[in-house]
Amino acid sequence: MSSCVFCAIAEGTAPAARVYENDDVVAFLDIRPIARGHTLVVPRTHAPRLEDLDPAHSAAMFRTGQRLARALARSDLAPDGTHLVLNDGRAAFQTVFHSHLHVLPRWRGDRLRVGLGLVRRRPHDPEATAAAIRAGLDRLATEEHS
Amino acid sequence: MSSCVFCAIAEGTAPAARVYENDDVVAFLDIRPIARGHTLVVPRTHAPRLEDLDPAHSAAMFRTGQRLARALARSDLAPDGTHLVLNDGRAAFQTVFHSHLHVLPRWRGDRLRVGLGLVRRRPHDPEATAAAIRAGLDRLATEEHS
Repeated sequence: MSSCVFCAIAEGTAPAARVYENDDVVAFLDIRPIARGHTLVVPRTHAPRLEDLDPAHSAAMFRTGQRLARALARSDLAPDGTHLVLNDGRAAFQTVFHSHLHVLPRWRGDRLRVGLGLVRRRPHDPEATAAAIRAGLDRLATEEHS
Repeated sequence: MSSCVFCAIAEGTAPAARVYENDDVVAFLDIRPIARGHTLVVPRTHAPRLEDLDPAHSAAMFRTGQRLARALARSDLAPDGTHLVLNDGRAAFQTVFHSHLHVLPRWRGDRLRVGLGLVRRRPHDPEATAAAIRAGLDRLATEEHS
């Protein structure tokens, strides 16, 4: 069994509120979200630091982050903006050493909410939140095929 | 003439301390850096929001961000970590509506410095800083070809 929690989630041996996956990456809700809909995109291949990550996998990760931002905008969470953030190294607040991308939705006037979220980092009904993001991905796919 | 400052930099009609460019992107120092070495990666094609950005261009942008993080680690700036950040939408602090990626180096124990940098955002000898990053890119290329 892997000692890396993100590898375990990617392999399906640890639980997570999954929102999307493909051959390269798995995306699931952060267990300690700063805001509702805070999602992580994780390459399936273990790479502790950005330095170790194959550029093809990092491009796939970022592409999925962009797709999730578009899906969030179409979801019932309806954020006004999104941060895509990769924290590389302890000095840049990396805590899980399996390189990953944060997708963090933002709403106008949410500074206080996000400030409190940074301190509290509590889940917000993860199953309903994951379902809302998956519905946003479905809306995006419908849009693309119409 | 373009009214977008990042298009003007990409076209070479506005000045910038350039550190890297290829067919898809241009990278240069942020004119109001949060920290020394704070670099922006800008797709040549104008796209106001992440929504408008061709996924191939966004992948190229992120790949360059990753390369710059590796170059910074090999440069005399010698950061201990890096953030790669894309702020999409005013609610997520996007200020220039030509989608771009921030490469923000971090050093152990730099919280106060970065905190002050957020307020001051003053250039730190941009020509010397850009030269140091270009030297890091050269070291990375030498490493790759040895």
